Amino acid sequence: MRTIDWVDGAIELIDQTLLPHRLEVRRVTELPELIDDIQRLAVRGAPALGVAGAMGVALIAAAVEAANGDEELDRDEVRRQAALLREARPTAVNLSWGVDRALTKLDRGTAAVLDEALTIRDEDIAACVSMGLRGADLTRELTGKDRVRVMTICNTGSLATVERGTALGVIQTLLEQGSLEEAFPLETRPLLQGARLTAWELQRMEAPFRLIIDSAGPFLLSRGIADAVFIGADRIAANGDSANKIGSFSLALAAKHAGVPFIVVAPESTVDMSTASGAAIEIEDRGSAEVTGFGGTRTAPEGIGTVNPAFDVTPHELITAIVTERRVILPGSGQTLSGVPFEPLRS
Amino acid sequence: MRTIDWVDGAIELIDQTLLPHRLEVRRVTELPELIDDIQRLAVRGAPALGVAGAMGVALIAAAVEAANGDEELDRDEVRRQAALLREARPTAVNLSWGVDRALTKLDRGTAAVLDEALTIRDEDIAACVSMGLRGADLTRELTGKDRVRVMTICNTGSLATVERGTALGVIQTLLEQGSLEEAFPLETRPLLQGARLTAWELQRMEAPFRLIIDSAGPFLLSRGIADAVFIGADRIAANGDSANKIGSFSLALAAKHAGVPFIVVAPESTVDMSTASGAAIEIEDRGSAEVTGFGGTRTAPEGIGTVNPAFDVTPHELITAIVTERRVILPGSGQTLSGVPFEPLRS
Repeated sequence: MRTIDWVDGAIELIDQTLLPHRLEVRRVTELPELIDDIQRLAVRGAPALGVAGAMGVALIAAAVEAANGDEELDRDEVRRQAALLREARPTAVNLSWGVDRALTKLDRGTAAVLDEALTIRDEDIAACVSMGLRGADLTRELTGKDRVRVMTICNTGSLATVERGTALGVIQTLLEQGSLEEAFPLETRPLLQGARLTAWELQRMEAPFRLIIDSAGPFLLSRGIADAVFIGADRIAANGDSANKIGSFSLALAAKHAGVPFIVVAPESTVDMSTASGAAIEIEDRGSAEVTGFGGTRTAPEGIGTVNPAFDVTPHELITAIVTERRVILPGSGQTLSGVPFEPLRS
Repeated sequence: MRTIDWVDGAIELIDQTLLPHRLEVRRVTELPELIDDIQRLAVRGAPALGVAGAMGVALIAAAVEAANGDEELDRDEVRRQAALLREARPTAVNLSWGVDRALTKLDRGTAAVLDEALTIRDEDIAACVSMGLRGADLTRELTGKDRVRVMTICNTGSLATVERGTALGVIQTLLEQGSLEEAFPLETRPLLQGARLTAWELQRMEAPFRLIIDSAGPFLLSRGIADAVFIGADRIAANGDSANKIGSFSLALAAKHAGVPFIVVAPESTVDMSTASGAAIEIEDRGSAEVTGFGGTRTAPEGIGTVNPAFDVTPHELITAIVTERRVILPGSGQTLSGVPFEPLRS
């Protein structure tokens, strides 16, 4: 089952706000619906947003073409609406990347735009397969074990991509290869993507797992509960510093203390060589509402302030390995992104 | 305002389950009510439970005496009921400590039992004052600053004691002395004592503070948000290893990484010289319900497993200082509990 796909002339996507209690596929035929779905996080995750952006441009082009009748496609109008889509979540780099990549085909017409969107979709699926295979092999190699126990944070599964996921894709591959002893997803405050989405995915794939609260992760690592930690990434700087869900840094410190490999799994599109290091990554504050309550229940007193960083940055020296679809880089052992050559996709 | 006290022949306590939304003082006149209040965490925190245990025995003795009429006090009946009270929360060491200490006066009659309970109450208040003064001085000394920003976890304030608190008592003392720039309480999953109780106490004392989620604490420390971290303790082993709320270990690792003092504040009664090290402390698992939901909202899928350690253990080498009412020990600098002499209470 795909998180997002193009079916009979429209986008179909799983409404992730209803999970884990209800699985509902929404059919999106209009731009305002798509923008709304992106803003309320019905679709989320960097790779999935890239596909949503590209398919959104296909949706726009088809609608503009239909409205124009027999006249030539109004490309300016497509670009104007695409700009609205790009702004649905301004900090989601992959969304604008997907929009822009689809727009490069606009001069060749609506069908070419759709074709590009489908290519992005297929590339994402292939990249996740390749990351999973590379990550699973690496894990057995680094741990010296055939069956491993792994910890992860946030949702980096098929719900964040099209079909398999990045960090959770490695866990799925380990499961398929008979190498997963147990997974330990963290609940991932404030939005609880781990409790809501990752637990749901692990349950569907029939993986052995137990859910833990975020602050228990570091301590349980120190007591030997896991053989490796996998996380995804929002952005990887040129020196290997990696921005990811808040809580990742804490796990990295604890993994180092416990002598357990800490592995970042993300597609090459996440690598941003124009950002020298993590110090250059601005960290937005997502405001108070997420911290002072959850799911409509207020827990903290009224009228208080919060600090709510949307993500954190793990320094490269705490990262054992970065796994992409094309290579494995070992920052903790001194390897650099610019120093490790690309390899073919694995499948 | 006191969290628990003896007023006109009965126990009065703040019902902490209603905070931060409602402040309600319950008057407890019967043993079953008190046991129920302890079990549903209406009263909680090691020192407050010690007082609850001792005052509970006073309540029992008075009731047995009243029922006996002119006959001699039935001490066996008092002991039988006291055993029920002791079992209300079997893992709360302070509860049975308070019960047992009050029982030592039973042979001298009901008034002597009550007197002992009031002494325990007054000792707790005096101990918190002394810890606050020692902790505040130490913080200025270790940081070299007159005004400090501090991070803390769980609730170690007046709600956990009788009147001032341990770690939060130090923060209150810093505030009273004009030395508190800002406090950063962690929300403290799974039961959110930080968001519900500590935020409420800080707001009442008009301290500048901002609430953060647990997993943000370690990262924000690495970015220099605080000058020191204070935590309480459930138990301190002979070598200085300290058991405290889950999440403490993670903060200790991060404080070490950030070069920030990590300070345990707890009364001498928390020191357990019969436990050699943290390895000997058994960690109970509190079950799934706390992890799979948040503030009454179910977040995770049905039918999944969890790991839910009630507390964690911070190794002594990560602890800059242990502050009690009688002394300051520096485990991170090689000092041991047996090597540091007691000093008089400060007031």
